[in-house]
Amino acid sequence: MNVEIFSIGTELLLGDIVNTNAQFIALKLAELGLSSYHQTTVGDNPERLEQALRTSLKRSDIILCTGGLGPTSDDLTKEIVAKLAGLDLVLDQESLNRIESYFSFKQQAMPYNNQKQAMIPKGATVLENQRGTAPGIMVELEGKTIILMPGVPHEMKAMFVDQVIPYLENLSEDKIVSSHLYLYGIGESDMEMQIKDLMKASINPSIAPYASGGTLMLRVTAKAKTQDEAQALIDPVIENLSQIFKDYVYSIDQENMAHVLVNLLKQMKLTLALAESCTGGMIAEMITSIPGSSQIFSYGVTSYSNEAKQKLLNVKEETLKQYGAVSTQVVKEMASGVRTLSDADIAISVSGIAGPGGGTSDKPVGLVYLCVTTHDKTLTKKLLLGRGRPNERDSIRHQTSLIALKTVIDLVKDL
Amino acid sequence: MNVEIFSIGTELLLGDIVNTNAQFIALKLAELGLSSYHQTTVGDNPERLEQALRTSLKRSDIILCTGGLGPTSDDLTKEIVAKLAGLDLVLDQESLNRIESYFSFKQQAMPYNNQKQAMIPKGATVLENQRGTAPGIMVELEGKTIILMPGVPHEMKAMFVDQVIPYLENLSEDKIVSSHLYLYGIGESDMEMQIKDLMKASINPSIAPYASGGTLMLRVTAKAKTQDEAQALIDPVIENLSQIFKDYVYSIDQENMAHVLVNLLKQMKLTLALAESCTGGMIAEMITSIPGSSQIFSYGVTSYSNEAKQKLLNVKEETLKQYGAVSTQVVKEMASGVRTLSDADIAISVSGIAGPGGGTSDKPVGLVYLCVTTHDKTLTKKLLLGRGRPNERDSIRHQTSLIALKTVIDLVKDL
Repeated sequence: MNVEIFSIGTELLLGDIVNTNAQFIALKLAELGLSSYHQTTVGDNPERLEQALRTSLKRSDIILCTGGLGPTSDDLTKEIVAKLAGLDLVLDQESLNRIESYFSFKQQAMPYNNQKQAMIPKGATVLENQRGTAPGIMVELEGKTIILMPGVPHEMKAMFVDQVIPYLENLSEDKIVSSHLYLYGIGESDMEMQIKDLMKASINPSIAPYASGGTLMLRVTAKAKTQDEAQALIDPVIENLSQIFKDYVYSIDQENMAHVLVNLLKQMKLTLALAESCTGGMIAEMITSIPGSSQIFSYGVTSYSNEAKQKLLNVKEETLKQYGAVSTQVVKEMASGVRTLSDADIAISVSGIAGPGGGTSDKPVGLVYLCVTTHDKTLTKKLLLGRGRPNERDSIRHQTSLIALKTVIDLVKDL
Repeated sequence: MNVEIFSIGTELLLGDIVNTNAQFIALKLAELGLSSYHQTTVGDNPERLEQALRTSLKRSDIILCTGGLGPTSDDLTKEIVAKLAGLDLVLDQESLNRIESYFSFKQQAMPYNNQKQAMIPKGATVLENQRGTAPGIMVELEGKTIILMPGVPHEMKAMFVDQVIPYLENLSEDKIVSSHLYLYGIGESDMEMQIKDLMKASINPSIAPYASGGTLMLRVTAKAKTQDEAQALIDPVIENLSQIFKDYVYSIDQENMAHVLVNLLKQMKLTLALAESCTGGMIAEMITSIPGSSQIFSYGVTSYSNEAKQKLLNVKEETLKQYGAVSTQVVKEMASGVRTLSDADIAISVSGIAGPGGGTSDKPVGLVYLCVTTHDKTLTKKLLLGRGRPNERDSIRHQTSLIALKTVIDLVKDL
């Protein structure tokens, strides 16, 4: 059985957005052990959409469509699929109620054309949309299955994980279980060199490396008759890999490093304060994106000028004059400043040159100083994150934030 | 004439990488005014690759392939295309020389299997690879053109921009120009209701709506003999749409709202300070993601507890007791607090319930108070951003941040 990923949207053909939906679904299918041989992208054009769907129906058993379920006249995925399946579109009252309640929550009247989203091919299975208005739809056709999901990524992801994955799991007799080991601070090729033979030798469970946003992931996937049997195959492999990469591992099955840190601090009943310069609030944003982070985080300061560093964090004018804002001495004073102010157990501070401007020969773009301090420990790091490439600002800020979080995770684990 | 984007690589089918190549090429094709109706992705499987190419040859005039030109045995794009075109693969000495010099430059011996990359379908046009070893190839076949490029993004981009775009430009007589109008605060359906007839009536220039991340975009695209003629067709339409949606428009051709605000404040020589609670640094992060934001932003405070609001912003204990942290009174004191502290021209403050926890019947998840204050104006807003759905935290924080930025943009424009 093979699954085709079918993306619908003129914005994809025009290059207005990257097709992250296809990658998300492809990754999940790989984890489920389902074969996927084709990805198709077409626009909101009825003839070409129908023709492409006919082509896909010839070669694939399940077609996972995203997009074209919106309220506007150019959204016509449902209409084409209903036509292919020879089904009428009928009003689904439950879906209409959900759409109306969506708008009443926003204290808005439902625009008339949103009614269109409640029209469902007669007899089709409706997939509830927890995040938006367009319901998903599952249609059987010529012994094949077409599954329609919204194109808005967070709506699609929720629907796919909660409703489509369980359906797909039931199609395969074997249970496939994956565990993910998340690493930070080692390069992909270095990592692969160390376990090349192990990866080659590992069939079930298999070991697959994957790099994303500066972190590395090792996916360990096992196939067995039951979940427990599969898990039993995985556990020793994860254990072994955790040993091999113990300096780099920050979590099992939780990619979000801020999430890992917040949970760790909660468990240990520790609080965190932040003094950010070049990251400009990014670390605070990452921490507070985690529900319940208020238990461990109260004080964050973005001091984006020397004056702000003095006023908000009591950094000494002499220190700024003598060493400059981007220096070990200043991040030390920033960290102790915010820790004193907040009375937090742990304080992080960063100051650096994110670029593109502001770099000099002895303080280049990408130079960042980082300090983590507790009541009895103070640790500073000098980072060189510039590669001399254009548009590094985001990656320098992002890498700095991840290194700061990883530093605290390591420090807290040693307490 | 239409162009198909054809991506080859099993790593795409496994979801190990996002297909940024397809988006890059699609965007360039749109800028060139070339129609692109299909994007296809297949793996390194000879039968399926050949079959998919045959399908594409039926419906497309030019097929832009990326991937499968590597030195290893599973890279077989060239072999399949040669087979389809009935051409032998012959050694191209120039390409071999370039590959050898690539390795000698890196002071490495050329691995034997890289010779394979110098094999070219007899009579095909070779595209030089300035960044790597795999040459690109252009093959004429059944009156159609297949163009093969490497899958490594920076190699492909250089080859596409330097060698493929000039080829494509010669195929189109007309010049295509687009302008983008960015709106916030109006729903996609409402927006379309207002200009449905206008959109229908607009052929050249055409008007296309597009929603992304809470903001709306209207793309106006004109085709003419020259760039200037096309621009002259666009300008009055943009002018008209700006009037129709004047309460919602925040920029022309700049999607990033923080970018718009930073530039606006720079022009007007105004400074901004931030006091964030529920957004937890997100607004500061958005502002500081813009290069040069330090000219207009120095002071950001994330006060994530009552104590922090008192200590950092001098919010009165009585105010917190009497009205609660999520109230008009508290955001007013937060804003004036950070403005006093920073001496900035404009201060933004937000306090709300991002959820999932912390909501009550009279203060539900999604209730956010926002305050913007200057030396002589103070403006507060009460927002209800909850939809009663799971995992709204991110969207509540994101919408709050955008509304805050838009509020300041509107206020500054009236100064």
